[in-house]
Amino acid sequence: MRVPVPLPQSYLLLNHGPTVLVTAAAEGRNNVMAAAWAMPIDFDPPKVAVVIADGTFTRELVDATLEFALCVPTTDQVDLTWAVGHQSGRESDKFERWRIGAEPAERIGAPLVAGCAAWLECRVLPDRDLAADHDLFLAEVVAAWADDELFRGGEWQFTPGGRRTIHHLNGGQFFATGEKLAARRAE
Amino acid sequence: MRVPVPLPQSYLLLNHGPTVLVTAAAEGRNNVMAAAWAMPIDFDPPKVAVVIADGTFTRELVDATLEFALCVPTTDQVDLTWAVGHQSGRESDKFERWRIGAEPAERIGAPLVAGCAAWLECRVLPDRDLAADHDLFLAEVVAAWADDELFRGGEWQFTPGGRRTIHHLNGGQFFATGEKLAARRAE
Repeated sequence: MRVPVPLPQSYLLLNHGPTVLVTAAAEGRNNVMAAAWAMPIDFDPPKVAVVIADGTFTRELVDATLEFALCVPTTDQVDLTWAVGHQSGRESDKFERWRIGAEPAERIGAPLVAGCAAWLECRVLPDRDLAADHDLFLAEVVAAWADDELFRGGEWQFTPGGRRTIHHLNGGQFFATGEKLAARRAE
Repeated sequence: MRVPVPLPQSYLLLNHGPTVLVTAAAEGRNNVMAAAWAMPIDFDPPKVAVVIADGTFTRELVDATLEFALCVPTTDQVDLTWAVGHQSGRESDKFERWRIGAEPAERIGAPLVAGCAAWLECRVLPDRDLAADHDLFLAEVVAAWADDELFRGGEWQFTPGGRRTIHHLNGGQFFATGEKLAARRAE
């Protein structure tokens, strides 16, 4: 079940470096692309940084609305993540083409991809130079959600062989998020 | 063995979102801290973004030299990563205190942490506003290295139960990088 995550906890949804799906919408058109280059940059208010390449349809929609969602896909969504990551949505609606479920967000116009582990609704902090020079967008997280089967009590609840988050390498190769390790407390 | 990685391949060392160690050096003093918030932002020339908090000793050294290295620690270095991530090096040398091996870099003054999976030598792209407003540093990767036991032929070579990269959650909890998954090619 999709449940709200308190905003100061939302960095935990990205802290381990998963690959994300970036969604955006404008004038009745939705799009979704994959992005391995996304990370938190602040705790509270929570902020993120993400690279959205110039020339992509998602970039057009983000430039037009200054809003996007970061959706954190799972091991069940590897094919979907790869499909939306290397084909453009300019000509055909990727949600229709790949039969991707979309749910409305609460604070922004971009849709949330159904079946993900977590979702961050984001509003861009305007900085035209950063986008123009580096395709880099900084944004404030204005709402956050998680599938409570996978994240609750401020912690990821992955089980061996169960649904987990994913980390793109290149060319459709991913790593699943692996086992948990605890550091011994330093003296 | 530490071997050079061609610069256009260096993004692969960070693409899956591992936690890194940031090293810096100035006026005969070295320091190392952990950072979960680091990612590639460009392929060629390769560039990275990393958050280095204001007030840390590492930040002082980076501000003074505009250079740092990103070292990618392994499952064997979880304790080390946590230790250097929550204690300051201003009062005592962390390399001495935690008996961390340091090797000279090739293009920058910052040391490379021995035993890591990969290393990226970086020169900061000056942008005082970005650092002042968001503690965010953009940098060009000027040299890259990997342990050829773990990365060769442009691919990570992790084996189940073997040394792998790590992903920090919070409070000394990490995920190991998990098993490889291949997306089916979309029609």
